[in-house]
Amino acid sequence: MDRRSFLRATTAGGAAAAASALAAPAYAQGRRTLTLVTTWARGLAGVHDSAQYCADQITAATDGQITVDLKAAGELVGAFEVFDAVSSGQADMYHGVDYYFLGQHPALSFFSQMPFGMNFMEYANWINHEGGQELSDELYSIFGLKAMSAGNTGPQSGGWFAKEINSAADFEGLKFRMPGQGGQVMGKLGASVQNLPGGEVYQALSSGAIDGTEWIGPWADEKAGFQEITKIYYTGGFHEPGPNLNLTMNLDVYESLTPVQQKIVEQVTRASNIWTMSLFMANNSSALQRLQSGGVRLMEFPDEVWDAFGTASKEVTAEPMGDELYKRCYDSYMASLASSATWIARSEGTFSAQRNRVMGL
Amino acid sequence: MDRRSFLRATTAGGAAAAASALAAPAYAQGRRTLTLVTTWARGLAGVHDSAQYCADQITAATDGQITVDLKAAGELVGAFEVFDAVSSGQADMYHGVDYYFLGQHPALSFFSQMPFGMNFMEYANWINHEGGQELSDELYSIFGLKAMSAGNTGPQSGGWFAKEINSAADFEGLKFRMPGQGGQVMGKLGASVQNLPGGEVYQALSSGAIDGTEWIGPWADEKAGFQEITKIYYTGGFHEPGPNLNLTMNLDVYESLTPVQQKIVEQVTRASNIWTMSLFMANNSSALQRLQSGGVRLMEFPDEVWDAFGTASKEVTAEPMGDELYKRCYDSYMASLASSATWIARSEGTFSAQRNRVMGL
Repeated sequence: MDRRSFLRATTAGGAAAAASALAAPAYAQGRRTLTLVTTWARGLAGVHDSAQYCADQITAATDGQITVDLKAAGELVGAFEVFDAVSSGQADMYHGVDYYFLGQHPALSFFSQMPFGMNFMEYANWINHEGGQELSDELYSIFGLKAMSAGNTGPQSGGWFAKEINSAADFEGLKFRMPGQGGQVMGKLGASVQNLPGGEVYQALSSGAIDGTEWIGPWADEKAGFQEITKIYYTGGFHEPGPNLNLTMNLDVYESLTPVQQKIVEQVTRASNIWTMSLFMANNSSALQRLQSGGVRLMEFPDEVWDAFGTASKEVTAEPMGDELYKRCYDSYMASLASSATWIARSEGTFSAQRNRVMGL
Repeated sequence: MDRRSFLRATTAGGAAAAASALAAPAYAQGRRTLTLVTTWARGLAGVHDSAQYCADQITAATDGQITVDLKAAGELVGAFEVFDAVSSGQADMYHGVDYYFLGQHPALSFFSQMPFGMNFMEYANWINHEGGQELSDELYSIFGLKAMSAGNTGPQSGGWFAKEINSAADFEGLKFRMPGQGGQVMGKLGASVQNLPGGEVYQALSSGAIDGTEWIGPWADEKAGFQEITKIYYTGGFHEPGPNLNLTMNLDVYESLTPVQQKIVEQVTRASNIWTMSLFMANNSSALQRLQSGGVRLMEFPDEVWDAFGTASKEVTAEPMGDELYKRCYDSYMASLASSATWIARSEGTFSAQRNRVMGL
């Protein structure tokens, strides 16, 4: 399906629809300001920091030839309107996670997060060296976009629950917050899945409107305050082992950059990847210790539950296979994952298990 | 110890010693060529690619304001002379792994590789967010250097052996090639450790002059051809779970860059980190499959051997503790590692084990 058909088929937000008729942004020769919108509320732990990092570094490394003006969610358009806003040219680029936009194209899951999918390093491998970027370019160009991997939260936690999960049957009727294909998996297990924006989750969990939620990881979860409501915290999760954050530019804007500016944007987004991942790691590690000291019980799902997650994930990720581009992304992604996972298990997996055992870590 | 004392104490290579009296490189205002020397032979899988990536991206992102001229090992100075050459100003920067230079300062092991130490992600965490860069700046400034993390090979393999290793006693009298503190650990176990340059390892293993060798990982090892000599390959290793490659500049040269140029170098080295790590992952994964198809037996050391590695590693890494800066690096590094390893085990570790089990990867 071409871009025009997709834009017609999309229910664009009012602001985005109005802006789609605007001309490309005017700019003085050699110096310009580009607007960056995000799927993140200002100050949201780690993810807003990642967007700000990209904005600041592009501005600094181009010596202000490109000044990036960051507008957090709600400041120019809403969190879930950024895709349309940049596709239509209302904004120049967005920083976000694209499983919010699976309604635009199901293959966006490969470039944000597949359940039981790639971790941070495996995604970097696929996108940089095993065909991922070429498929990304093909997919996003349908919408007049150019996406670049620009961050990763690292593995997200299984979540906070009012009651322990002892079998897959415990999900039947459970009211749970989880976005993307992961949420669809929970639906297969009988959960009533809700995709609340971050700002509403605490109140919903506190009031009993939901029985549980995943959010990000110890750092952001602690800031959200879920430990005040329940002490049952599953640290391992199937749904987001390494969600990729993209910096996605309007394709016309991207192509209007000089080759040197394009090179700087490429280098900054790659740098942001490792900076963001390690920012989450540093803060998750310390927050996990504080949560545990504060009486939070760190839990793991039993194997039977992981098996149920697996069966449902295979169903969910197979459903869009009638789409030719989705299938090509799937085949490329899974071949790369099978290869990298085998190597990692034999090298890093063996080492880490032995190191932590021998050194008592 | 200050830089001058260290330079006096060092047996500099002839070329480096001669060059130390030269003035800082002359350059035309605004455009300059900087010389990059390396510890890698031209074309050496992955590591030379990483140096070339840094050179090319700095040149491109500065629009040639800085043109980086890469001289591989032996083209200007030898592999083991790069530290002195850049410290003295004979060359402007080097790309390499600094466990080759433990004779200059034992704390260089923290910024290259500690046995049983950090993997790629844990090192990025420490250097970017938990005090590592500040300690790096303190250490390298002694030698008039500024080091930036610029690549990682990912976990290195345990190595190739003429005979199976069934107990720690099998290392007694074994002639083995391994550099750095890892080599010192093997020495504690009774091995006769040799630190041969890469170009001489195949011949030594083939002739029986050594009984085994570690090199890098499946990709580089396959290129070296060790599978033609023995089929016994231990994929997990204690000695280099994520060796860091630095781009290290002469401090006077670094400080002569404009703030924008410094920013570009920072972004490129961070980008090179993830690009290099994933390049190794992509090629290691496919090479591992080819080696296995070709009859190589993928082995793991028994727990008893890992325990012996651990005991000896603790001895080796404790020996330089009388050096005040080494001890501060050690304390910072180990605190960061204990924190990140715990989080990784509970999140990524749990996930990866379950994913590979459930999905049959």
